[in-house]
Amino acid sequence: MSPIAEPRPGRLFLVPTPLDFGVTAGAEHGDLQDTLALGVIRRAASLTHWIAENAKSARAFLKRVDAVVPLALPLQALAILELPRPAKGARAGAAPLPDALLAPAVEGKDIGLVCEAGLAAIADPGAAVVQAAHRLGIEVVPLPGASSLLLALAASGLNGQSFAFVGYLPIDEAARAARIRELEALSRRAAQAQLMIETPYRNMALLSALLAHLQPSTRLAVGCGLTLPAGWNRSDSVAAWRARPTPLPADVPAVFALQAG
Amino acid sequence: MSPIAEPRPGRLFLVPTPLDFGVTAGAEHGDLQDTLALGVIRRAASLTHWIAENAKSARAFLKRVDAVVPLALPLQALAILELPRPAKGARAGAAPLPDALLAPAVEGKDIGLVCEAGLAAIADPGAAVVQAAHRLGIEVVPLPGASSLLLALAASGLNGQSFAFVGYLPIDEAARAARIRELEALSRRAAQAQLMIETPYRNMALLSALLAHLQPSTRLAVGCGLTLPAGWNRSDSVAAWRARPTPLPADVPAVFALQAG
Repeated sequence: MSPIAEPRPGRLFLVPTPLDFGVTAGAEHGDLQDTLALGVIRRAASLTHWIAENAKSARAFLKRVDAVVPLALPLQALAILELPRPAKGARAGAAPLPDALLAPAVEGKDIGLVCEAGLAAIADPGAAVVQAAHRLGIEVVPLPGASSLLLALAASGLNGQSFAFVGYLPIDEAARAARIRELEALSRRAAQAQLMIETPYRNMALLSALLAHLQPSTRLAVGCGLTLPAGWNRSDSVAAWRARPTPLPADVPAVFALQAG
Repeated sequence: MSPIAEPRPGRLFLVPTPLDFGVTAGAEHGDLQDTLALGVIRRAASLTHWIAENAKSARAFLKRVDAVVPLALPLQALAILELPRPAKGARAGAAPLPDALLAPAVEGKDIGLVCEAGLAAIADPGAAVVQAAHRLGIEVVPLPGASSLLLALAASGLNGQSFAFVGYLPIDEAARAARIRELEALSRRAAQAQLMIETPYRNMALLSALLAHLQPSTRLAVGCGLTLPAGWNRSDSVAAWRARPTPLPADVPAVFALQAG
């Protein structure tokens, strides 16, 4: 037995963020305590090492944390490392992960992982960090927080007992139409709700494509800016959407869900 | 124009609950503010009409809410209606929904919908209530909260950009083995993580079946009692699970996720 104890590795905390990132300007941000548990805010305030999709928005988040529970160190003194950005056109998360990212945890420091909105490692490139943590024997602790995907699904009334999230649809028009029909067929065969997202400025284009290619009896739900003051959701048959369309904003994230009727 | 204004319909709030329901005895419950946002607790405290999967556990939840923010009415004065229980062997949610459930909202009262743990209308029979609300023109407001499904997925490092939740697997041994192989093939074809749950006392039986029928290179993750003090998660290849098995408790909910390697 060595007289010098091995350092106990730190943990990787998956820290949820509110769903209003990048949506409203600083002053209009809602109260952090409207969406995050005090226990989560306390844990975030205690962490001095961070991995973020974007360091600038991580700092904006930590400033809001500090307003509720003072940070353990001044904001400027925190170590915030950014996830490598995927090369243009490459799959998110395809960039190799630098060893430096998890080095603080190997040396015994707890690390927080944050993404742009909602749960880290869901619908974002954070999963590669989590995989690396497991490989290195670093304990991964997911802190409770909301995901816009499941809020939209819950609000839709579609099948919450069987559902799939498929990410983004192809942008090419013919490929997108084929994918929409494939998802509708899949949803019919497996009675499974199919969820997808889109870059906000293409929200209307996706809605138009869905209304053009789905069957009239298929149910289509949109959750837009959920948890925001102006958030709303609609769940209706494609026929009803066609008869009474709802315009979608080009600057608010939306989640789309469909289920064959 | 009528001189008597139509009552403005109430809203249906989907109220998340902590993930420790039915796991620990009353005195051992964690602080509600470890998992729920103060804004959500405030909203829950303000509601006088409820729909619950189980009235007894809804009351236990509201007692914990009251300890943080005083309830608008004494607990005994709240109207708590239970969802109809499905006939034995019938699909959950298959029982017809009594009109009485949403009558208070039609008459202008806000209603809260709670399930046993986590998000209402996800992996539980609440979706039928949400569908009925949309039909009746009642606004549905999903409040932010955690789902054990997405916490387990985030902690797994599996594909958070494409995943499916498939509920329970068949209990019959041959049907279960076939379903496991089908999910593994699906996960390989679509690079899609597949999530499932099991009644806690069958946790070990499901784990054994997964280890018996999956390929050695497939990744298998288990999130057990996430957000609880004794919660843990493991994400490893099937080969590594076989070499070093982890026993699962028979009284704590677990979420299982697999992805072909």
